[in-house]
Amino acid sequence: MLQAEMERMGQKAKEAAYKLGSVSTKVKNEALMAMAKALEERMELILTANEQDMEAGRAKGLSNALLDRLLLTPDRIREMAEGLRALVALPDPVGEVVKMWTRPNGLQIGKMRVPLGVIGIIYEARPNVTVDAAGLCLKAGNAVILRGGSEAFNSNKAITDVISAAATSAGIPEGAIQLVETTDREAARIMMRMNGYIDVLIPRGGAGLIQTVVENATVPVLETGVGNCHVYVDEDADLDMATRIVVNAKTQRPAVCNAMETLLVHEKIAEEFLPKVAAALKEKGVELRGCQKTREILPDCNPATEEDWKTEYLDLILAIRVVEGFEQAIEHIHNYGTKHTEAIVTNNYQRARAFLQRVDAAAVFVNASTRFTDGYQFGFGAEIGISTQKLHARGPMGLEELTTVKYIIFGDGQIRT
Amino acid sequence: MLQAEMERMGQKAKEAAYKLGSVSTKVKNEALMAMAKALEERMELILTANEQDMEAGRAKGLSNALLDRLLLTPDRIREMAEGLRALVALPDPVGEVVKMWTRPNGLQIGKMRVPLGVIGIIYEARPNVTVDAAGLCLKAGNAVILRGGSEAFNSNKAITDVISAAATSAGIPEGAIQLVETTDREAARIMMRMNGYIDVLIPRGGAGLIQTVVENATVPVLETGVGNCHVYVDEDADLDMATRIVVNAKTQRPAVCNAMETLLVHEKIAEEFLPKVAAALKEKGVELRGCQKTREILPDCNPATEEDWKTEYLDLILAIRVVEGFEQAIEHIHNYGTKHTEAIVTNNYQRARAFLQRVDAAAVFVNASTRFTDGYQFGFGAEIGISTQKLHARGPMGLEELTTVKYIIFGDGQIRT
Repeated sequence: MLQAEMERMGQKAKEAAYKLGSVSTKVKNEALMAMAKALEERMELILTANEQDMEAGRAKGLSNALLDRLLLTPDRIREMAEGLRALVALPDPVGEVVKMWTRPNGLQIGKMRVPLGVIGIIYEARPNVTVDAAGLCLKAGNAVILRGGSEAFNSNKAITDVISAAATSAGIPEGAIQLVETTDREAARIMMRMNGYIDVLIPRGGAGLIQTVVENATVPVLETGVGNCHVYVDEDADLDMATRIVVNAKTQRPAVCNAMETLLVHEKIAEEFLPKVAAALKEKGVELRGCQKTREILPDCNPATEEDWKTEYLDLILAIRVVEGFEQAIEHIHNYGTKHTEAIVTNNYQRARAFLQRVDAAAVFVNASTRFTDGYQFGFGAEIGISTQKLHARGPMGLEELTTVKYIIFGDGQIRT
Repeated sequence: MLQAEMERMGQKAKEAAYKLGSVSTKVKNEALMAMAKALEERMELILTANEQDMEAGRAKGLSNALLDRLLLTPDRIREMAEGLRALVALPDPVGEVVKMWTRPNGLQIGKMRVPLGVIGIIYEARPNVTVDAAGLCLKAGNAVILRGGSEAFNSNKAITDVISAAATSAGIPEGAIQLVETTDREAARIMMRMNGYIDVLIPRGGAGLIQTVVENATVPVLETGVGNCHVYVDEDADLDMATRIVVNAKTQRPAVCNAMETLLVHEKIAEEFLPKVAAALKEKGVELRGCQKTREILPDCNPATEEDWKTEYLDLILAIRVVEGFEQAIEHIHNYGTKHTEAIVTNNYQRARAFLQRVDAAAVFVNASTRFTDGYQFGFGAEIGISTQKLHARGPMGLEELTTVKYIIFGDGQIRT
């Protein structure tokens, strides 16, 4: 029965996507504005639903961190509305002809950006994802099926009711924004195998969720998430700059995937650099775990084990390794990195180039903080997540990444011989 | 044990891919030339191995069509070698900076094409895929793990031995071209779940193989294959042109995915067009299956059922439906098409534009044969297959589609605030 219910949703989304492909930018933008306005006007309804979720969460003993993620306030709702309005200003990727060429036989071939179709999003506690994802998918001409966490069920339902009604009244086909209205875990499993209805599945949440989706989905998946990111401070680094970058990469927002987890330091500058950076990190409350050589320089640093090189702490903890040189740094990143974001601090031209060339990651930085791997920071204006796989999109995914292409071919009766 | 063996292959491929990313275009091209030369020089070895496969195939009672696919001849081997040489002339996609921009904070961000890493190819009878796939993957800087059909095992092994030795001697890292050296079906299953070793899996073969891979893979898959393609002959078509296109789309090579399977004809021109096109098709030996209206015009046409609209015949059979107009044609394609290739024949400007806009398929043609959906015909110079999914690549996949991107970012000490 749930299977049939999910397929009905899928069919509805598919029909909506088919119509949505021809909806003008103007109508999509009006819908985004209407959705934003509705969120603000129906704030009480959403806050009441959120209060239910918060009460249930407290009763269930959710951690304060989780409760904070779950919490909606008038300010947070206004922020969500502003996010939708910001999408209006972004260029519509749909219909752009990326390139066009003519073949010797006269066929004129163009590569045109078109919506992906139906996007499934499976996510966890934060109800703002509901609005973000719906807005991004809509602007890129896609229908969306949202599957939020059970803790936020009432909030997500209230939000979806409000924004999907506003979208429909602004001329968006019904079924373009749908929420899976059950907390039954089986619904997510079904979504993962809805080939023919869902074109792409994007999981947003912790490593466990992403793993489950990758393991079980037959629908193509855009994997997001894990970042075991490094900063390598080269022998030719400006040590003040290196300190600023390391402190920023570790502490500006430690719980996110583009935060640094391991610091690699060239042995030639370790004695000068480590005490300096350690002092700055300790001021920010960072726990340090170092290799043997690090601990010879920083005696009160905890020891790092093999496990530490592999760990994405997402916390105020930093692993430190002193390396013999550039090659060992590259090798460490090759062995332990998750191909998300890697950075070198150096003033050496050749090693800067070699690092950019040889490190295999979605984003490779010279002399800047890893924290810049982000759709807004890259200038995409919005972000649906950061891809950590290599197919389709790598790194921050904005509106363009929510489209595919089709070839449009103009002929004059050409046949193949 | 097989699991461990496969993982050893995967590890070797991963290491080779890591090194291959920095190998110059010059070395890759020299390797392609060396591989071509080796194929020609070691022809006897390959033909002997192929004879073993052919004998076993005959003993197993393989069909003549399958035996023909399996057969290698000196000419076919020379063609394979020429295919490798043709790759030398194509531009190397690796390292191209697709775009570059500067952010207000001075960060300079570039999007650079890089290899995917390790590509797994699972394919069926034809041993030429071994050479094609190895050459394409190599030119795009990827390591490849090949898993051919059991019927062609000896041929594939001989070919891989020859070309991988030639590649290595030309400076390509060992492990860049590997064949799974067992006919155990379990090996393919293991490949499908080698996340962490294989970045992308490409199945090449019949619908059954592709379905199995899509159902079972946890590694990201590039789906290729099924094409239930239509030609819609509009009321404003040039009927001579329409006849040429229809005959070409159906008969020039009926067994491939871009051949037409169903013809849609506007009712206003059906009486004039159908007898004309039917005569031309019958001359080519095509069996016609029509809707009620078609059969009123062509009395000796067989009846078409619902099943016919859904069928990819891959044979000299054509389903024909007379439609009330453009909208019904679009709707038929929407309901039965597989989003591969669709064509309209018309001289009406508005409907040509509407068809290009509204039909959701990898390739949409105006006034040309569906048979042009092909990497060579599009000017890509080579093709690894035709994607029928929407992620990453859609339609013919050439060298560019065997790459991903990485962001390279040049900073001057920027931190995020």
